[in-house]
Amino acid sequence: MNSVEVDAAGGRYGVVIGHDILTGAIFDISESSTTTVLITEETIDGLYGSWIEDLLCERGRVVRLVVPAGEASKSLSVANSLIARMAELKVRRNDHVVTLGGGMISDLGGFVASIYMRGLPVIHIPTTLLGQVDASIGGKTAVNLPEGKNLVGTFYQPRQVLCDVNLLKSLPDREFNSGLAEVIKYALCFDRGLTDLLLTRQEDLKRRESELLEGIVSRCARIKAEIVSEDDRDDHRRLLLNYGHTLGHALEALGGYERVLHGEAISVGMVCAANLAEARGYLDADTVQLHLELLSAFDLPVRADFLIEDAIRLIAMDKKNLSVNRWVLLGRDGPEVVEDISKESIEDALQKVGGSR
Amino acid sequence: MNSVEVDAAGGRYGVVIGHDILTGAIFDISESSTTTVLITEETIDGLYGSWIEDLLCERGRVVRLVVPAGEASKSLSVANSLIARMAELKVRRNDHVVTLGGGMISDLGGFVASIYMRGLPVIHIPTTLLGQVDASIGGKTAVNLPEGKNLVGTFYQPRQVLCDVNLLKSLPDREFNSGLAEVIKYALCFDRGLTDLLLTRQEDLKRRESELLEGIVSRCARIKAEIVSEDDRDDHRRLLLNYGHTLGHALEALGGYERVLHGEAISVGMVCAANLAEARGYLDADTVQLHLELLSAFDLPVRADFLIEDAIRLIAMDKKNLSVNRWVLLGRDGPEVVEDISKESIEDALQKVGGSR
Repeated sequence: MNSVEVDAAGGRYGVVIGHDILTGAIFDISESSTTTVLITEETIDGLYGSWIEDLLCERGRVVRLVVPAGEASKSLSVANSLIARMAELKVRRNDHVVTLGGGMISDLGGFVASIYMRGLPVIHIPTTLLGQVDASIGGKTAVNLPEGKNLVGTFYQPRQVLCDVNLLKSLPDREFNSGLAEVIKYALCFDRGLTDLLLTRQEDLKRRESELLEGIVSRCARIKAEIVSEDDRDDHRRLLLNYGHTLGHALEALGGYERVLHGEAISVGMVCAANLAEARGYLDADTVQLHLELLSAFDLPVRADFLIEDAIRLIAMDKKNLSVNRWVLLGRDGPEVVEDISKESIEDALQKVGGSR
Repeated sequence: MNSVEVDAAGGRYGVVIGHDILTGAIFDISESSTTTVLITEETIDGLYGSWIEDLLCERGRVVRLVVPAGEASKSLSVANSLIARMAELKVRRNDHVVTLGGGMISDLGGFVASIYMRGLPVIHIPTTLLGQVDASIGGKTAVNLPEGKNLVGTFYQPRQVLCDVNLLKSLPDREFNSGLAEVIKYALCFDRGLTDLLLTRQEDLKRRESELLEGIVSRCARIKAEIVSEDDRDDHRRLLLNYGHTLGHALEALGGYERVLHGEAISVGMVCAANLAEARGYLDADTVQLHLELLSAFDLPVRADFLIEDAIRLIAMDKKNLSVNRWVLLGRDGPEVVEDISKESIEDALQKVGGSR
């Protein structure tokens, strides 16, 4: 079992990573809490809902609120209906919220927890690889609007994050691999030793070997924790975590957030950014090749079918981009934000990953 | 012109208090902002909307969003429709929100600003006395649920607060007096010199003499700023600002938030708390009398018509009250939170202000 400390402006909390850690886990729930609101989605509820509810029951009443699976639940209207249920059930400001699910659930449940009575403590139990290495750490909560993803949300640190890698065994391959795209991002940007591990142990990883997963999730969680501890808003180093996300977000939007998984989209996005960096002389051909090798090893796409003008329009609308010309590029000394990328070189890089005019 | 600095965990900002300060005011809007969202309500919009829009126009596009006047607009559905408009109009994360109105508008607009793209900077221009001395300072945002007032919201500090006491001249007497109830609360709890001023200058105050108003609003803003700077959550000293609010909130709820104004409700609430304090030997009869004298001088009610059991039920539901027995009482050394007040003495005190069994 590993433990990572996050020290953000909005609060200090621990991320615990291990296998078989939930039975017997010490949930960080205050004495004064009488109700725990367990927010989850249908698929995960069928797998783990009753078990987690039983674990939480020792701390008082448990209210289990289950939303439909899928990104469509990450909406203001679902958030409002969760809030309405909590008010009807007389949930109080000293009660707690526990989220059980992937990034959709920690984003939605974290948002609800952050605005109900101006904030109830929230504990995340991420059930996807993406949730364990990324979404559950750092205090970003969100719901989507028709105009774009994550356009509404808060910065709100959880009280505790419990990552049990055994939960990842129930993930469909495609979703597991999608999470690996974020792992590969951490490896390429911040932990080159991890790239070797991913390549040499790829078969064990595909079998989801517990010890290996625990080690990998811990390394990634430590990187994310370190970055969000320095900077719990978006403005500085945290932007570097957006490697591959500039095109990635656009591809997700083009796929209606259902056809392309997040990790698949950023997989193509990282290849695109690597091409851009190579064209500027930031990256050598070997490192671009390493991108392709790692992503392909886990069946992640390295190109996509899209119109260049659609992608550029969506990149311009992305809330993190003040301009289309701002990308996170990887250089020899790690990732950096580059502001002055020309339209032509962006179009070339987009074309290389499958964009058409 | 006076300026008060607030130094809260969520940010540092200035409250400027004066008369005729808006024309020529320097709005704290970043260079990178291209759109200012002006959120206001119909009545205020008719009085000041175009003028303020003209002032803001110098900083780029102004989007004026007008909601119906009245507490009913402080809802999740109105917040959602404001957010939808902002997204349609492509408001970006480096843009700004300006609220123009009373506490309803700064609560609603502050909430919207705090969750749109995880937070746009917000400038409050409070147009009511209550807004200037209380609601606009301290970073609490909120909307109501059918189950209760302010049940959804965030802690989100504004970037700037501009209090022009000339705006108060358009207030109906009843609303102006309602704001004075909060002023009287500050005076009784934290600034006994102010109680003398309120009594000796009551006629000038009723005429809303600018210099006098500027002085009074500044004293109150300074008290509020000092308390929220020490403690920008609810847990400690900030609770003391809730003097009179325990019964006050219940009376507002019983009146459906329309029949009784906030200040009228806390006026009765302060008399009730004074009776409780006198019964415990905390307060002498003269100070109880001072409550009645001050409140009556400004036509504020000192009793109400309600059922004691209804009030107790609502007090128990109030989100700030962990128990019915917890009240803020005034003693010889100022206000304090008292936890162990007996049901009998509460019932007696409620009866004294008009409660019936």
